[in-house]
Amino acid sequence: MELPLGFRFAGVACGIKRAADRLDLSLVVADGPVTAAGVYTQNQVFAAPVGWCRGVTPTADVRAVVTNSGNANACTGARGDADAAEMAAVTARLVQADNPQQVLVLSTGVIGHFLQMDRVRRGIESAVPTLAADSDAFLRASDAILTTDQSRKIATRQLSLGTATIRIAGMAKGAGMIGPNMATMLAIVLTDAPLEPAQAQAMLQRAADTSFNCISVEGHTSTNDTLLLLASGAAPGLPLDVPLPRDQQAMIEHAITELCIELAKQIPTDGEGASHLIEIRVSGAADDPSARTIASAVAASALVKTAIAGNDPNWGRIVSAAGYAGPAIDVARTKLAINEHVVFEDGRPTEFDRMQVHQSMRDAKTVVLDLIVGSGAGRCTHWTSDLNEAYVKFNAEYTT
Amino acid sequence: MELPLGFRFAGVACGIKRAADRLDLSLVVADGPVTAAGVYTQNQVFAAPVGWCRGVTPTADVRAVVTNSGNANACTGARGDADAAEMAAVTARLVQADNPQQVLVLSTGVIGHFLQMDRVRRGIESAVPTLAADSDAFLRASDAILTTDQSRKIATRQLSLGTATIRIAGMAKGAGMIGPNMATMLAIVLTDAPLEPAQAQAMLQRAADTSFNCISVEGHTSTNDTLLLLASGAAPGLPLDVPLPRDQQAMIEHAITELCIELAKQIPTDGEGASHLIEIRVSGAADDPSARTIASAVAASALVKTAIAGNDPNWGRIVSAAGYAGPAIDVARTKLAINEHVVFEDGRPTEFDRMQVHQSMRDAKTVVLDLIVGSGAGRCTHWTSDLNEAYVKFNAEYTT
Repeated sequence: MELPLGFRFAGVACGIKRAADRLDLSLVVADGPVTAAGVYTQNQVFAAPVGWCRGVTPTADVRAVVTNSGNANACTGARGDADAAEMAAVTARLVQADNPQQVLVLSTGVIGHFLQMDRVRRGIESAVPTLAADSDAFLRASDAILTTDQSRKIATRQLSLGTATIRIAGMAKGAGMIGPNMATMLAIVLTDAPLEPAQAQAMLQRAADTSFNCISVEGHTSTNDTLLLLASGAAPGLPLDVPLPRDQQAMIEHAITELCIELAKQIPTDGEGASHLIEIRVSGAADDPSARTIASAVAASALVKTAIAGNDPNWGRIVSAAGYAGPAIDVARTKLAINEHVVFEDGRPTEFDRMQVHQSMRDAKTVVLDLIVGSGAGRCTHWTSDLNEAYVKFNAEYTT
Repeated sequence: MELPLGFRFAGVACGIKRAADRLDLSLVVADGPVTAAGVYTQNQVFAAPVGWCRGVTPTADVRAVVTNSGNANACTGARGDADAAEMAAVTARLVQADNPQQVLVLSTGVIGHFLQMDRVRRGIESAVPTLAADSDAFLRASDAILTTDQSRKIATRQLSLGTATIRIAGMAKGAGMIGPNMATMLAIVLTDAPLEPAQAQAMLQRAADTSFNCISVEGHTSTNDTLLLLASGAAPGLPLDVPLPRDQQAMIEHAITELCIELAKQIPTDGEGASHLIEIRVSGAADDPSARTIASAVAASALVKTAIAGNDPNWGRIVSAAGYAGPAIDVARTKLAINEHVVFEDGRPTEFDRMQVHQSMRDAKTVVLDLIVGSGAGRCTHWTSDLNEAYVKFNAEYTT
């Protein structure tokens, strides 16, 4: 695995999670000050570490990201804020950073409980000596941010810019069928391309809009959702000048966006019981935000999600969800295809072969809904999971 | 049962539903022209009968309401519009109305199929001779609008206005755990009070805002949702003058609103598998619409609904849903009580007795969430059902 240059990684178990051997403290440390940008939950009930990071990014002066899993440090009031600041301070001291503001802090896990700071401190202390730039260290750091996830979520890219090669790597957490912590999504994207803070922030926001902002599991926006981008500029052979030429910026943004989409899709794919990934492609809307609103409404519909769990080509639930989403649709021009079978056209269901479409859904891991809602240029692709009995059983029986 | 004067009722089986003996055609016929108002689905994909009724109400000149169940006449294009018009025309002719515009048309059931108009015509023809003003006829009419409902939904009120007594009666349909027709809600409210069309329309819209617009099952807005109010003015002993004095108008509106709430609550209470009715009382919001938006977000959350199905006092899911709903909340002043047990206060969970709250949820048919989100005057009460495995099983296995 080719990782971006200029970063080291560590993941250790410090006892925040109940199972003592599960990794729950993750470090990403930059060799020197790097550019950092962040996109955060829009929930007004946000966790202490979100407040901390918002106060720091965008910046050209980050040295480390410290993440704990197993406790979200959310709904913890002033003591939670102090604990987040202390996580930054302890990490800053141990990695020889100049000040705590050079450290970004992430937390994920149960909400409403104070962090056991003695364990967190011990975790950071034990992680720092294990920092390394290799794949094993990266994987340990990636595993240590997981909670109810069934599998690790990582992605990498390489990109040639003239004679230079830049690298991008990302780690994420967030489970399709979720447990105590409302599917908090965390993602850290790293690159050795040189980016300025404002540029990195703009790129990351746009990338989020077509990736992490286009996935949903049950429509909850968690208290802790965070997406970070760190750019070291350590790729060899690059001109030292920033900003980069516009075409190179665009290439980097494209690669970052693609990597974010790859990471994002792993979230609804994951998890207990989800039998299908649903890919909802909306086009023909007035503009992209309209398409996004329509796709979100379809994705949020329990009726759509249960129908797809049952492999039922229920066009009515899908088309009517688009109809109440809000943005204008042209019903007479609305067209819906399920796995490329056209089931609704010109305001009417077609004479499709129900058993054939049913079988195509049953046999596919991803069910693709192509929904054209008019003749506008707005489009969006949204990914979600289906909704079956296992999900409900898991979420009803789980007691915090 | 004391029914409003000036109306007759019928309900018959005409073979639209698969089971030949199930009532599926309902008539409400006024002795003379009456005032009628309507509130309809906001879905852009709306059924033919909705378009028909929108073109007629508010009006002072309605003679009948004809409803078929078993087929929603939705997504049926121009032929569907013609069929709705023909239902009105056939009914108008048989009840000696002057023209089809004096007849309101409702349909509910599967969508995307053309009405079998020969059966509908036969149904209207067989219903008209059975029209009667008594309770049995009213109950048959009420039963004939049901689809997946487990039980009949009716309510009545009497109100003294000076020396006169006015009566209000309503019938509704809509099931908590729903099947093919996306929980279409139909309701017909009748009174023998005298109301002018604009007055009736304004009253009905306000009544809908605190009743039928404050219930949800899975957040879908159906293609056919319709609420009608018919006012005959046939109560004896009333002054012939309309408008009525302002205080009498207010009394009538209050009674209509209370009746609408009673009918509306029967919808999420109904249905296969729903184990709790959830009553979400939001207060302290900036204004009533903000409170409504927050309550709707909590009600729409699958995580909240599954937690309550599991009798889990999961304050985090509830408070965070309020946090992402949109309207501003004051997290530091946010307070949540579940069945009167305070579980969250001042931005933090309380030290509540989890087992005690769990037991109170388990033993209650209605779980009450009291959510204070600040110090504003905005408030709203919203009702929904919980989400358990039976629901998902039913909705995944149902194939249209």
